[in-house]
Amino acid sequence: MEALKKKILNEGEAIGTQIVKVDGFVNHQIDVRFMSEMGKEFKRRFGDIKVDKILTVESSGIAIACLTAPFFGYPQVVFAKKTSPNTLIEGSYSAEAKSFTKGTVSLVRVSKKFIEKGDRVLIIDDFLAHGEASLAMTDIIKQAGARVTGIGIVIEKLFQGGGEKLRGAGYRVESLVSISKISDGIITFSE
Amino acid sequence: MEALKKKILNEGEAIGTQIVKVDGFVNHQIDVRFMSEMGKEFKRRFGDIKVDKILTVESSGIAIACLTAPFFGYPQVVFAKKTSPNTLIEGSYSAEAKSFTKGTVSLVRVSKKFIEKGDRVLIIDDFLAHGEASLAMTDIIKQAGARVTGIGIVIEKLFQGGGEKLRGAGYRVESLVSISKISDGIITFSE
Repeated sequence: MEALKKKILNEGEAIGTQIVKVDGFVNHQIDVRFMSEMGKEFKRRFGDIKVDKILTVESSGIAIACLTAPFFGYPQVVFAKKTSPNTLIEGSYSAEAKSFTKGTVSLVRVSKKFIEKGDRVLIIDDFLAHGEASLAMTDIIKQAGARVTGIGIVIEKLFQGGGEKLRGAGYRVESLVSISKISDGIITFSE
Repeated sequence: MEALKKKILNEGEAIGTQIVKVDGFVNHQIDVRFMSEMGKEFKRRFGDIKVDKILTVESSGIAIACLTAPFFGYPQVVFAKKTSPNTLIEGSYSAEAKSFTKGTVSLVRVSKKFIEKGDRVLIIDDFLAHGEASLAMTDIIKQAGARVTGIGIVIEKLFQGGGEKLRGAGYRVESLVSISKISDGIITFSE
């Protein structure tokens, strides 16, 4: 998505070799109009797949998930909650997700009420790095007896391997932009 | 908002005397189509006030803030982040907010980049209970030299006093529904 590459280059910030900061329009301040364009682009990429639910994870996935829903005919959006790994919550599916940036492990959980057997679930998230959050969501969807119809990502960092894991496991991953390298303040896109 | 009262009665759950659970359409699963209607209603209530920024707090305010933005001409949405009270983060405004439900105190913070002097800020949140989150946001807006033009709330629990504090401080608060009592599984609206 060319407009997103431009916006990242103009407004984003490369930090070290691992981080691209987009807090000006994605995950602290949100450019709702632009995010709606991203939602429309997910629809274009995924075409006519059927979606009963959109699943994301708090907090930074919520905006893009909600702004994608209208283009898929307003499926319900569910956001997985992050809790400490020793919190057992009845009536929930849960899976562990490591955060490489923060050096922590959290438990990602979804109430059993909100994903049903047979549901066709589209996962939407802002970043795909090591794939921990997406993998935790696929795990939860499997626990529910539901099906992952696709994984839509705003920014994939190819060099952190999450996409490889997910595609290797047979999931269809669509990333609006893919970054192959971050170095000396320069962001290199893969295509 | 009659449609919201109905939805709360049909899909919500009264717990004890303090809690109304709306995780089926507000703060775990999100009914995006219905939330857009709520966004439109905020616009109707606030009329032609000028809004440069919408401010909310993670996680459950993000959806309603984003779905309200289109009706005000797409101002940027900023969500305050919650961190532990001993985290000092440079370049941020912060204020303390107690959570009466969780019995914790968190620090609510916003990067200085995203609220500027003179900004007219509309606060949007899902719940108004004791008013701690909204008060923390008004504090941050003042620190930035910006102005609160209004506070839009999905569900106000009148008996927890937050609305009284905010209105007493001179803020214009618009709640889509106001609950005066929760008792024996019965939710009583104020009007």
